[in-house]
Amino acid sequence: MSIFQATTSAPVNIACIKYWGKRNEQLILPTNSSLSVTLSQDNLRSTTTARADPSFTADCLWLNGKVDPIKAGGRLHTCITEMKRLRAAFEAANPDQPKIAVFNVHICSFNNFPTAAGLASSASGFAALVYALAKLYALPQTPEELSLIARRGSGSACRSLFGGFVAWDMGSDDATGSDSKARQVAPESHWPEMEALICVVNDAKKGTSSTSGMQRTVVTSALLQHRIGFVVPSRMAEIESAIADKRFGDFAEITMRDSNQFHAVALDTYPPIFYMNDVSRAIIAIITEYNRLSEQPKAAYTYDAGPNAVIYALTPNVREIAQLVLYYFPQAEKVVIGGQEVQAALPEGFNEAVAKRWEVGAVKGLIHTRVGDGPRVLSDSEALLNAQGIPKTLA
Amino acid sequence: MSIFQATTSAPVNIACIKYWGKRNEQLILPTNSSLSVTLSQDNLRSTTTARADPSFTADCLWLNGKVDPIKAGGRLHTCITEMKRLRAAFEAANPDQPKIAVFNVHICSFNNFPTAAGLASSASGFAALVYALAKLYALPQTPEELSLIARRGSGSACRSLFGGFVAWDMGSDDATGSDSKARQVAPESHWPEMEALICVVNDAKKGTSSTSGMQRTVVTSALLQHRIGFVVPSRMAEIESAIADKRFGDFAEITMRDSNQFHAVALDTYPPIFYMNDVSRAIIAIITEYNRLSEQPKAAYTYDAGPNAVIYALTPNVREIAQLVLYYFPQAEKVVIGGQEVQAALPEGFNEAVAKRWEVGAVKGLIHTRVGDGPRVLSDSEALLNAQGIPKTLA
Repeated sequence: MSIFQATTSAPVNIACIKYWGKRNEQLILPTNSSLSVTLSQDNLRSTTTARADPSFTADCLWLNGKVDPIKAGGRLHTCITEMKRLRAAFEAANPDQPKIAVFNVHICSFNNFPTAAGLASSASGFAALVYALAKLYALPQTPEELSLIARRGSGSACRSLFGGFVAWDMGSDDATGSDSKARQVAPESHWPEMEALICVVNDAKKGTSSTSGMQRTVVTSALLQHRIGFVVPSRMAEIESAIADKRFGDFAEITMRDSNQFHAVALDTYPPIFYMNDVSRAIIAIITEYNRLSEQPKAAYTYDAGPNAVIYALTPNVREIAQLVLYYFPQAEKVVIGGQEVQAALPEGFNEAVAKRWEVGAVKGLIHTRVGDGPRVLSDSEALLNAQGIPKTLA
Repeated sequence: MSIFQATTSAPVNIACIKYWGKRNEQLILPTNSSLSVTLSQDNLRSTTTARADPSFTADCLWLNGKVDPIKAGGRLHTCITEMKRLRAAFEAANPDQPKIAVFNVHICSFNNFPTAAGLASSASGFAALVYALAKLYALPQTPEELSLIARRGSGSACRSLFGGFVAWDMGSDDATGSDSKARQVAPESHWPEMEALICVVNDAKKGTSSTSGMQRTVVTSALLQHRIGFVVPSRMAEIESAIADKRFGDFAEITMRDSNQFHAVALDTYPPIFYMNDVSRAIIAIITEYNRLSEQPKAAYTYDAGPNAVIYALTPNVREIAQLVLYYFPQAEKVVIGGQEVQAALPEGFNEAVAKRWEVGAVKGLIHTRVGDGPRVLSDSEALLNAQGIPKTLA
């Protein structure tokens, strides 16, 4: 008897032009286009095994070792249903294919970074899930087409279907959302010097969830409409051009301005939403001062719906930036970049007074990574389900 | 021989609709109208004595006991020159008046609140200065006309020429600024139940000055233009109506939204400007939760260019709000309201988890005050200059 199973991994992406606001909650259609950098799966990834079998009595999903209920009409349910629909159509067009669309599926997913790191795992998670089902079902759909379904799981998940630099075009088909999908602006090989330093910031309390937060912004912020209509369209064009020409200074300025503006519309929400804290602000002050020392910015900060900073920089400058971060945010553990330990240091001419030196733990970890590739197909030896289709960690 | 001298005091004002951005730096013409509440001089005030005398060899100003240089073309110089010009015109029209416009002046000014409190003293200071010179010179000008000159000292100073609720209409005369002046929306007697609780917040570092900050916002923020053109005009009309009808809930919501939006455009500035810190954010979370418990908001926070919160509330609710603030921000000294000590307490149904309880000193003081009157003329016994025209504190 055949085993129908596939294992994949998918990357995290961090937006430079932020997605904040839906024009359709059900279809997850955004109020503006967005653009992100896909980070390397060598460091951060979601891994998923999907299996279809006539013996399974129900669709079932385990996330990080625990059952995650598949609620009717919920996002997981939508993605799985859509993928089964694609398989059924594929079987109809190819009568020689085994009839597995009707089988229940077991899906096991695992993020290699702790939830406590405060990194959004829904993007990589839904991308890995959709990609695993696409491989299980041997579907002919392109990553762009699959991104339509990942989007229904979590908006920004659509961008994790590609490596490199990825746009999510908002589209104009409001009835079905058929043109609201991801598009690769440039592959990771185009600009391999693009690296990222993630500062994992301690946060006392959980902030507003992005789903409810962005909805409140859409309803209450007077400034959001201006951002959507007049700011983002030109920024999208400008950052795509900066990426095409590898103009890091322009890429950095647009990225920082858009992060600032996203947090500005969050603050213009009523009641207001704050994701950055005093540590986040200190990192902004440090990067601002660092960039003042050179003609063009050499580092770009960006913040999602939480206090963590992601700092983009080119290879020759990453060590200097890590030294700077260490100066203000001492670490309990050694930080190694390029095989060499990083020591706290300030660049020449840097105005030390832009921030205070914090205690150990204010930034509770640094993750160094780079631009990376899109979803990968993994070998069976890396499968998360055992021979019986049960998570290996539970068996 | 006659002594030509006058002593006045002027109040602090805290804006509900914020002034942020100049369309003319020299004339201090704002990009939008604004509206403030004048706070009682019984608690916070600037006091100024102005004297004209043929024996003085130069114009001279002492601020809080130290000489403050009057630079040619600077703001102090502009205000003094304009006031002398008005006196000269008055003398020309009234030949029986003594010719004192040509005398040099000595001006001594004192704020009764420490600079360390982080409360803007330039508004009350310039209002007291202009008012003292107007009294010294026995000028016929109305407070509205005098506000044109105070505005040249510090934009928001024009609003401290009136008590109660005060608009600063931006005007449209860009050549001379003749219609950019203060207007009393309602006197303090209209709504005497309006009180204010100022939370003086500790701040490690000095933020961006408002003069340079607002200029950077005008140049770099894409959202500011939308605020100026589409948001503020309707908010001005709405808050004036809420004040006229004493609808506190509407007054509070507009005030909080406008504070949020001012800080949003500061954050949309490049590089971004932050005035609020984690303590400010915690106070917002506390007031938001407090307002959730009632149908209409019972408290309104607002933040100027610094981390201090000013909380507006009506008399029956002030004690409860002070108890709430004390619960999260314990004070080293007793807090007394209405003659009775305030004890830390949470209202029934309040979700304690919206903020952590901070250590003593995070909020380093509470100032309880109320809506108050406009500039006052003080008796000679309160003069700050001695018989020789030298500050009493230096003599």
